[in-house]
Amino acid sequence: MIKTDERRERIETVLKQKQPSLTVVLENIHDPHNVSAILRTCDAVGVMEVHLVYTFESFPEISKASSVSASKWMSIVKHKSFEDCSSYLKSKNFLIAASHLDIYSKTHDEIDFTENVALVFGNEQRGITEEYLRFCDFSFRIPMHGMIQSLNVSVAAAVCLFEAEKQFRISGRYDSIQLDKDVFDNKLKNWLLK
Amino acid sequence: MIKTDERRERIETVLKQKQPSLTVVLENIHDPHNVSAILRTCDAVGVMEVHLVYTFESFPEISKASSVSASKWMSIVKHKSFEDCSSYLKSKNFLIAASHLDIYSKTHDEIDFTENVALVFGNEQRGITEEYLRFCDFSFRIPMHGMIQSLNVSVAAAVCLFEAEKQFRISGRYDSIQLDKDVFDNKLKNWLLK
Repeated sequence: MIKTDERRERIETVLKQKQPSLTVVLENIHDPHNVSAILRTCDAVGVMEVHLVYTFESFPEISKASSVSASKWMSIVKHKSFEDCSSYLKSKNFLIAASHLDIYSKTHDEIDFTENVALVFGNEQRGITEEYLRFCDFSFRIPMHGMIQSLNVSVAAAVCLFEAEKQFRISGRYDSIQLDKDVFDNKLKNWLLK
Repeated sequence: MIKTDERRERIETVLKQKQPSLTVVLENIHDPHNVSAILRTCDAVGVMEVHLVYTFESFPEISKASSVSASKWMSIVKHKSFEDCSSYLKSKNFLIAASHLDIYSKTHDEIDFTENVALVFGNEQRGITEEYLRFCDFSFRIPMHGMIQSLNVSVAAAVCLFEAEKQFRISGRYDSIQLDKDVFDNKLKNWLLK
């Protein structure tokens, strides 16, 4: 009985810190370990929902890939195309931000996370598919100072997600409930059954 | 000939951004993929030297573990014991900061990277070995808001290293050479031969 109360308290504490204004899109990321590591980071910063667009890679078998399954506590939405995904996000007033280097890219810490932002990360080798960039509102890059020109994708996602975490933390967003009451109650009911 | 000039220019650009005041200690990290990902992040933010303390795990076979070998551009120093490692770092006036959760832990973004700081990351399962904590000057933690209580170690390292990167970038440290002239010249000579 005490254990049940503790569990409920833990779940409530986590739901109170959820940040529905931040989401992540994974586009054809190949390695399930990378997907799992990103989901774990999403859980840590309060992301509610992660979107998967797998148009040339197989959908990752997430549950088998990690002993610490963050996917249990994450809404994972699969889309048939990037266009479907971007339509969905735009209908919810998200800005779509592509992790992609071009002359217009802002740095990850210039992103204003007071807005609804969807961070898109592409395949390990190819990055975000070129033709999908037109569905994105802007691109961003992580500043690099070394000989190797790229980061592991789960590392890149973590650096961006924890920049959002810092902005949320400083502005007090973790100290007041961001979820609508009906969403909160629904999630609570749902998570208590897991 | 042009290629050689470009290569020299690239190496000089990277050496001009090196940050010798920041180093990393990896203590018994098991998975070579994690070690490789951390080395790649170290390269990206300008770390010069990484220390390995492997007292119960085997030394990682770094060169085989990554197709993008950041280890080529990193000084890797192996130590027989944590005490040896901490003596070495203290002789160079480094503060030793343990990634470890206790009631005294500061958050990673409360670390003042204007000082010489060595960030220590421990084994994936066990964290930093308890008895090594007495050699550390302080502990730090990454704020967590989710159901899962830990991050992948390469993700945790990246979040801290890019906090340092941000502090260096904002204070202009990447815009002026931080290496002593003899170290710079020596590294340049050495790297041109790679």
